[in-house]
Amino acid sequence: MTSNPPSIQTNFQLQPYLIDRQARVEAALAKSLPLAYPEKIYEAMRYSLLAGGKRLRPILTIASCELLGGNMEMAMPTACAMEMIHTMSLIHDDLPAMDNDDYRRGQLTNHKVYGEDIAILAGDGLLAYAFEHLAQGSMRVPVPLDRILYAVMHLAKASGADGLVGGQVVDLASEGQADVTLETLSYIHAHKTGALLESAVVCGGIIAGAMADDLQRLSQYAQNIGLAFQIIDDILDITATSEELGKSAGKDLQAEKATYPKLLGIEESQRQATALVATAKEVLDVYGAAAQPLQALADFITTRRN
Amino acid sequence: MTSNPPSIQTNFQLQPYLIDRQARVEAALAKSLPLAYPEKIYEAMRYSLLAGGKRLRPILTIASCELLGGNMEMAMPTACAMEMIHTMSLIHDDLPAMDNDDYRRGQLTNHKVYGEDIAILAGDGLLAYAFEHLAQGSMRVPVPLDRILYAVMHLAKASGADGLVGGQVVDLASEGQADVTLETLSYIHAHKTGALLESAVVCGGIIAGAMADDLQRLSQYAQNIGLAFQIIDDILDITATSEELGKSAGKDLQAEKATYPKLLGIEESQRQATALVATAKEVLDVYGAAAQPLQALADFITTRRN
Repeated sequence: MTSNPPSIQTNFQLQPYLIDRQARVEAALAKSLPLAYPEKIYEAMRYSLLAGGKRLRPILTIASCELLGGNMEMAMPTACAMEMIHTMSLIHDDLPAMDNDDYRRGQLTNHKVYGEDIAILAGDGLLAYAFEHLAQGSMRVPVPLDRILYAVMHLAKASGADGLVGGQVVDLASEGQADVTLETLSYIHAHKTGALLESAVVCGGIIAGAMADDLQRLSQYAQNIGLAFQIIDDILDITATSEELGKSAGKDLQAEKATYPKLLGIEESQRQATALVATAKEVLDVYGAAAQPLQALADFITTRRN
Repeated sequence: MTSNPPSIQTNFQLQPYLIDRQARVEAALAKSLPLAYPEKIYEAMRYSLLAGGKRLRPILTIASCELLGGNMEMAMPTACAMEMIHTMSLIHDDLPAMDNDDYRRGQLTNHKVYGEDIAILAGDGLLAYAFEHLAQGSMRVPVPLDRILYAVMHLAKASGADGLVGGQVVDLASEGQADVTLETLSYIHAHKTGALLESAVVCGGIIAGAMADDLQRLSQYAQNIGLAFQIIDDILDITATSEELGKSAGKDLQAEKATYPKLLGIEESQRQATALVATAKEVLDVYGAAAQPLQALADFITTRRN
C-alpha cells in the first residue's frame, strides 16, 4: 500500500503529487508497449501514447484506487489502459474524416506523420491493447479476477457507442447546427469526455475492491468533474492561444460547434464549472483527509490554463 | 450440454449443421446489439454486423467449445465477439484510406452508406463492444471468471498490433512491392486472417475449460486452416467473378498484391491448401468422432466457392 494514512495528508501539496504521479505514469506507459515487428505500427502507437499530456485519467485511477484501500501497483495497468483509450480517441478524432486537426499537444497529429491508414490502425491497436494490458498486467500483480473483469467491462462500455464513440457521433451531428440544445450539449460532454473520466475514477475503485456505495460516490465525483472539465475546455478554446493549448485554438467557433460559453456566456459557464467542482469535492468529504488528492485534482481541473 | 456424444456423430452431416449454427449465431448477433441513442451509430454497427456472411468464426468457437466439453450457451457471447471484431476489421479495411472498397458481402460498404466518420466510429464501437459483450454475456451464463478473462486477453491480442492490425499494416506496406517474399506473405496471412481464426477456435476451448494440451491442438488446427483459408481466398480472387464473391474480384491483381497463386501458381497453391487442411484434421484425430464438426469445417473451407 503506497497510500499515506489520512492523518499525515493534512498538508497535501498538489504540485509535487502531480509531478511524482506523472513521472510514474510516463515510465509505466513507456514500458507498456515495447517496439516489435511490424515496427511502423508500434512506432505510430507510441508516438501518440508517449506525446506527453497531463495524464489526468491515469492519475485519477491511481488516486481513487488508493483512496479505497488499493495501491499504485494494483492500479497501474488499468491507469495505463485509460490513457491508451484516450489516445486512441484523439488519434481517430483528429483524422481528416472527423475533426481534421494537424496539431495535437504541440505535435503533428498521428495521420500527418504516419498517414491516414496507419493512424486508423494505430487507434485500433491501442483500443485492443488497452484491454489486453489491463487484463494481463492486473493478473500479474495479482488483482482478484472479478475486479479485473468488472474493470474490463466498465472501460469497454465507456469506450464504445454508449460512451465516447456515442459522444463523438452526436458531436459530429451537431456541428454547424444552429439549434443545439443544452441537453444535447450535456449528452456530448457526458459521453465524449465524461464517460472515460468516470471510468478512470470508478475503475480505480473497482480494482481496489470498493463496495457499491463507494463506487456510487466515485461516479458522482467523476461526472461532476467531467462536465466541469469540458466546460473549461470550451472556455479555453475561446480565451487561450493556440500556443498555450498546443492545438489549434478557436476550432469550435470555426466549426460552429455548440459550446457552453456560446449557449450561456463565459461568466455563467465559469460559474457552473466552479459549482460542479464544489459538488464533486463535497461528495468525497465522507473520506476525510484521504480524499485530498482527488479533491485537489478537482480544483486543478478548473484552474488549468491548457 | 448440447453436444451429442461421439457415438451418434458418425454420420455427421455438415450442411444441416452449418444451417443450424448459422441461424443460432444470426439470432444471437441480432439480439446482442439493440438500437439505442444515438441511433445512427448503432444502425451503422448493425448494418455491417448483420450483413450475413458464413459466420465461420462464431461457428468455430461453438464447435471447439463443444468438442472440449462445453456447450453452445457458454460459447455464444465469445462467438459473437469474434464476429464483432471480424466486422470491425472489414469496416476499417474497406475505408478509402485503406483498401477503398465500395462493396462487401454484396452490399455497399459501411462508409459508402454512413460516411467515413461514422464508419471509423462504428468500427471502434464494435471493437470496444466485443470485449463488453464477451465479458458481460459470459458472466451471465455463468462461465468461470478465469476462463472469461483468458478469452478477453486472447481476443485482444489477436485484434491488435500483434494480430490482425499488424497483418493489415504489413499487407498495406507490401502493396505494389515487386519483391514480397513467401515469408512476408505468410506473416500477413497468419496475422490478418489467421490470428482471429485461431482466437475463435482457441477461445472456444478456453471457455470450455480446456487444458494446455487441448489448447495447443486447437491452435495447430486453427493455424493450418487459417493459412488454407487465405490461400483459397487468393485463388478465388483470380478464378471467381465479383458476383460470386459479393465483392470486387481481381482486387489483388489490380493492387499488385503479393498472393500465393502469384508466388507459387494456382495448382501448387491449391495443393498446399489441401495439405494444410489434411494436417489440421489429423491433429484432432485424438478426439475421435467428436472432432467431426471441426474436421468437416476444415474441408468446407477448402471447397468453398465464395
